[in-house]
Amino acid sequence: MPKRILRVDMTKLEAKFEDLPADYAALGGRGMTSTIVSKEVPATCNPLGIHNKLVFAPGLVTGTKAPTSGRLSVGGKSPLTGGIKEANAGTNFAQKLARMRIGALIVEGKHKGDDYYLLKVTNDGAEFIDANKWVGKGLYSTYKELFKEFGDKVGISAVGISAEILGAMSGICFNDPEGLPSRYAGRGGLGAVMASKGLKFIILDETGAPGVEIANQEVFSQGIKKLGDALKEHPVTQPKGGLNSYGTSVLVNIINEAGGLPHRNFSRGQDERAERISGEAKAEEIKKRGGVRPHFCSPGCVIQCSEVWTKPGGKDPVGVLEYESVWALGANCEIYDLDTIGELNRACNDLGVDTIEAGDTIAVAMEGGLANFGDGKAALKLLDEIRKKTPTGRILAQGTEITGKVLGVTRIPTCKGQGFPAYDPRAIKGIGVTYATTPMGADHTAGYAIAPEIMGVGGKVDPRDPKKAEVSRNLQIATAALDATGYCLFVAFAILDIPSGLEGIVESLNGVLGANLTVADVPIIGKQILDIELDFNKRAGFTALDDRLPEFLMEEKLPPFDEVFNVTDDELDSVF
Amino acid sequence: MPKRILRVDMTKLEAKFEDLPADYAALGGRGMTSTIVSKEVPATCNPLGIHNKLVFAPGLVTGTKAPTSGRLSVGGKSPLTGGIKEANAGTNFAQKLARMRIGALIVEGKHKGDDYYLLKVTNDGAEFIDANKWVGKGLYSTYKELFKEFGDKVGISAVGISAEILGAMSGICFNDPEGLPSRYAGRGGLGAVMASKGLKFIILDETGAPGVEIANQEVFSQGIKKLGDALKEHPVTQPKGGLNSYGTSVLVNIINEAGGLPHRNFSRGQDERAERISGEAKAEEIKKRGGVRPHFCSPGCVIQCSEVWTKPGGKDPVGVLEYESVWALGANCEIYDLDTIGELNRACNDLGVDTIEAGDTIAVAMEGGLANFGDGKAALKLLDEIRKKTPTGRILAQGTEITGKVLGVTRIPTCKGQGFPAYDPRAIKGIGVTYATTPMGADHTAGYAIAPEIMGVGGKVDPRDPKKAEVSRNLQIATAALDATGYCLFVAFAILDIPSGLEGIVESLNGVLGANLTVADVPIIGKQILDIELDFNKRAGFTALDDRLPEFLMEEKLPPFDEVFNVTDDELDSVF
Repeated sequence: MPKRILRVDMTKLEAKFEDLPADYAALGGRGMTSTIVSKEVPATCNPLGIHNKLVFAPGLVTGTKAPTSGRLSVGGKSPLTGGIKEANAGTNFAQKLARMRIGALIVEGKHKGDDYYLLKVTNDGAEFIDANKWVGKGLYSTYKELFKEFGDKVGISAVGISAEILGAMSGICFNDPEGLPSRYAGRGGLGAVMASKGLKFIILDETGAPGVEIANQEVFSQGIKKLGDALKEHPVTQPKGGLNSYGTSVLVNIINEAGGLPHRNFSRGQDERAERISGEAKAEEIKKRGGVRPHFCSPGCVIQCSEVWTKPGGKDPVGVLEYESVWALGANCEIYDLDTIGELNRACNDLGVDTIEAGDTIAVAMEGGLANFGDGKAALKLLDEIRKKTPTGRILAQGTEITGKVLGVTRIPTCKGQGFPAYDPRAIKGIGVTYATTPMGADHTAGYAIAPEIMGVGGKVDPRDPKKAEVSRNLQIATAALDATGYCLFVAFAILDIPSGLEGIVESLNGVLGANLTVADVPIIGKQILDIELDFNKRAGFTALDDRLPEFLMEEKLPPFDEVFNVTDDELDSVF
Repeated sequence: MPKRILRVDMTKLEAKFEDLPADYAALGGRGMTSTIVSKEVPATCNPLGIHNKLVFAPGLVTGTKAPTSGRLSVGGKSPLTGGIKEANAGTNFAQKLARMRIGALIVEGKHKGDDYYLLKVTNDGAEFIDANKWVGKGLYSTYKELFKEFGDKVGISAVGISAEILGAMSGICFNDPEGLPSRYAGRGGLGAVMASKGLKFIILDETGAPGVEIANQEVFSQGIKKLGDALKEHPVTQPKGGLNSYGTSVLVNIINEAGGLPHRNFSRGQDERAERISGEAKAEEIKKRGGVRPHFCSPGCVIQCSEVWTKPGGKDPVGVLEYESVWALGANCEIYDLDTIGELNRACNDLGVDTIEAGDTIAVAMEGGLANFGDGKAALKLLDEIRKKTPTGRILAQGTEITGKVLGVTRIPTCKGQGFPAYDPRAIKGIGVTYATTPMGADHTAGYAIAPEIMGVGGKVDPRDPKKAEVSRNLQIATAALDATGYCLFVAFAILDIPSGLEGIVESLNGVLGANLTVADVPIIGKQILDIELDFNKRAGFTALDDRLPEFLMEEKLPPFDEVFNVTDDELDSVF
């Protein structure tokens, strides 16, 4: 059976398999989503209107035995940025889709009226099921009910309460291995796009799926062995390494030390209380209270940076508390207590919102007077406004920029309408260049300059040197290519420093595709994807002036190192 | 005494007179505001940040005996559109400024902290007075107190409660001849810019002012005589003509008949109930209940389209109920009762908001479920949310587009973020071309294609013909020139049909300036102003794609004539 497209028309409530066009055969993940969005979605359309589409695509090696490759890309036109979007999650949903040989699941059209549907996809077809009974319900209880109703081996994609009010901070949720709603294609508000079409859930039942076709098993096996060895060798990705021991939150102390961890809505870059919410403190606490650490987000991961955070005694499991979430809901709101952050993260997962956008929004709301900084209970109440769909909740659900505008705040940390991640661009300039120039809106994963700027991975550069166009460009190109493979971005730490790791990736792709790619093809593939995305954004009305960071970064010095964002416009414009 | 600039620095609380630069000598009104904004305001700045400026400039003949010339331009970067803005009001404030030989009053910087100031300007200087006691107060009572405190001969400019929460629908208010806060430079949120700087009022005391210098009295007198004769001759502008008898609301029946009066948030173009809120019905009612009709907005107007609307018995005078306001707060919300519309208009004036943006916003809020269409009491309650500065009020105060986004509405009638005026572009295409292409955001006054499309003034064209680039372009150019003179836009009805009227205008300019302009120079002047504005918007990040109307106009046919907006992108792009 060849690879297929599943095309889901929400206007007609029809779902049909199509053959994957021959020129899509070598596309996967972000390469697939951005190509389809670029070809099929009018760039100027209303993101929540009938012409937008939502595309789910597993990576090229996803669903195979390739290590750490359970990634799914979701693409569409973003209601948050107004540009093209790829959001990315690690989940067995990705692997199931790949094993069913569904190269892309495209959701198009728009159901008329207020009903919500569940799309159940099996190897042979798809059916629409009334989903109205779950409207207004939190995702933790909903996921339990769905697994009960559809069997505990299915994969689930869902949108939550926030998406029901078309909140632009709504992500698309997937299950983790425990069945918790904790894995998110979070950024850019694609959850609102899914809800706007009348689609609330996608359930995958892979019974009878043929598995991923591997054209050359020998080359494939050799490739994944090389990559596996590199991952085991590199200090960041190896067992008992930084990510494995402390998860992504290993960065809390490191970035705080560098003066680039934003506290109190980007008004300081360092605070001694950061230690209380560090990866080290969290790992220690999980040992005491229960939960799981380390843990994989999808089967086959050798890095295992994930965890299951719980209340004391192992109760009310949340899922992982990522670095970005701990920062957004913690330091950025001056909340330095892991239990409170855990509750806030649980509320975000339950409501279906992106934790980064939610944390930025809460901090801006605190700045705008809706709550006091440091008040965790007040922050939880703000999220509860979304649950209740009140006017305040509707403001917040639209994310950082609209909340800031509505509340008259001028320190709004966004680019292209999307909230900043956990690194202040005044202290660490290269990541600021990525925030400004990636077609995705402020996004650290699009070109993770922190690696060379702070971690000494893939080279070593001064974080305060404003000449960072080349660093950001090269990382953005490499990332775009990696996002097409299905490998987790975190394999980059190993392959940036260990050449055989990258060779292994290319060989694994050749094994799956029966191709003859070389390492030199990787940046070509990455650049092709970026060009497609940049072209879409241009057609959507973006200019160089959209590649600028907000005024406050030039006006307000960031303590303790009193830096401003001093990357020139010419430097920014030289990225692409 | 030569013409001057008064430069007001809100950071330092300093106000200083400067000589008007020689190359500004022939600039007035919109020509002056757009030139200064373009030169002094960084196009990419935050409209509510320290780098934006607000410029007040009377027209070139304002303050003289030229008929119907009491217009003031206010310019800045708009927080609603993100582009350059000129908003325009008829008020004796304009005439006072001109007689004090202040060619431009520039407000710059930004007061730190929460205090508000009143700027009192006399012929010799300016002083800052604490204005905190008026924060949170409605403008009707405030204007009474201000006239009591500063004398009944001063001119007052003010921002209201809506601006205190930086609402992007906030206009800048001026007094009418009765001292009511009913004259607005309403559009584009310039009130929020003024408030963001800490400035709440400007009071003009013209004692000792030298008056406008007229270089050649003879030429001037001859010119204004010719214009006056044309105004008296043309059926639209003459005494007992349409505007004089019924005010701008004379259009209600006409546009409804044409199927282009938007009802229920742009879902129908005609409704038989429109007659109840027509200019004819209103004039009749004023005769019965008291109030004033006809009436001038500023001394020296021969058209006198204004009025004073009151409650029955002449109580609680509102000021004028313009066509746009009656439509926005009436038909567009399915409210067909003049008393309710009067109350809504009074609330808008009291809060300091643009009635067009307010009506669009209320209708979108009704569509989003915050109130029922037709429910006037609920509409008043919505405005009261702004007064109370509640979260709902803060949403609404941001205007149509943000309200629509926050409430998940897809039928949002805006262009460049600004709400549509009272003509549906599906039924009347030329005005849609103006909405789309003017640098001002959706604005009927920028190129009033209704004149040839509906009224047969300045030619006669089919409203449903989608070839309207030339019609709109020529009107936009003529309007930009007229907006520099200080003459009211309504003189255009006469001069489009009567050549000697336009000659008169040019002669009056020559009289004031001692210049030798000819009628052929008028489009050159207009084009120069537009070029400055288009260049600013380009530097602010606008592209041709910002010159597009929203998707619903192409998707939803407008009853009763079932038209969509079918002007091609090429046609739109050929305007400039």
